[in-house]
Amino acid sequence: MKLLEDGVPLAELSIERVARTAGVGKATIYRRWNGKDELFIDVVRAAEPPDPELPGTGLRDDLVTLLESLRRRGLATRSSAILHNVYAQMKSSPKIWSAYHAGVVAPRRELVMQVLRRGQESGELRPDIDLELANDLFVGPMLVRSTLRPDGELPEGLAEEIVDTVLEGLRPVRSTAS
Amino acid sequence: MKLLEDGVPLAELSIERVARTAGVGKATIYRRWNGKDELFIDVVRAAEPPDPELPGTGLRDDLVTLLESLRRRGLATRSSAILHNVYAQMKSSPKIWSAYHAGVVAPRRELVMQVLRRGQESGELRPDIDLELANDLFVGPMLVRSTLRPDGELPEGLAEEIVDTVLEGLRPVRSTAS
Repeated sequence: MKLLEDGVPLAELSIERVARTAGVGKATIYRRWNGKDELFIDVVRAAEPPDPELPGTGLRDDLVTLLESLRRRGLATRSSAILHNVYAQMKSSPKIWSAYHAGVVAPRRELVMQVLRRGQESGELRPDIDLELANDLFVGPMLVRSTLRPDGELPEGLAEEIVDTVLEGLRPVRSTAS
Repeated sequence: MKLLEDGVPLAELSIERVARTAGVGKATIYRRWNGKDELFIDVVRAAEPPDPELPGTGLRDDLVTLLESLRRRGLATRSSAILHNVYAQMKSSPKIWSAYHAGVVAPRRELVMQVLRRGQESGELRPDIDLELANDLFVGPMLVRSTLRPDGELPEGLAEEIVDTVLEGLRPVRSTAS
């Protein structure tokens, strides 16, 4: 973490240098991590806000919690020089980027899928909805603001607004009298 | 375009080199473009599939047309080495990236906003919806698949599916009898 704070590029980070900076032997590092990529991904995970506990009180609340966590991670990335730097460096290394996806992003996506499957089973979600699509409908708008548009607004309450609007739909409510 | 096909990096592209490759004088280039950035952005625009004509038959059809265009651009980026290369290079140059955003991305977003405003005026969209949010609800899921997930599926019919599902909502249809 100190080396990243100092702006050392990923390509110059070696297990040897990490060990030296930490004041330990290389063997101590290798006891916990198989290599530089694994170590690096654990560092990213530690720098990100922790993943949330789901309230488990229903589809809507679980989805709001997951999207709120995404919003906070977006805010953290903007305010944390380390995270900003780390994501930029990861994107330039296809190997580490795909290890980060497999180890961190994919499990997060799977958690959303679990919540959606439970929601469909409990009847809180239309039975005809493709869940991969539903995942993107909830997560996409938040990701676009936090990742693709550096000036995208991430106000408090955005998670609730996205979840409620996607659940409810954008069409005017049809009169039940007609 | 030839220089980009040959893989010449953006940093090495100069008006002089473009003029030489095109077999014209630098003055000929400067008659149409003020500089390298403007020229480059016009090249990107020419390499992308053309922006669509809106059918104008209503909110749903206009949105499907806009999202279908986004889907095609996503597919083109995957299959075109030039586009792939050009986007990657633009992202590493904040100045050109922001010129591309101002000249190409912002007008596209404004077109979606116009369609949404018309839809709200005609009563096809709930009157209480924030249109900036609505924009992200429609565009976000497609952008996430085309831009953030290199393996995201972009099947035919995806534009219709996103638009119809977001308009309709994900909650089960409530019985009108209750």
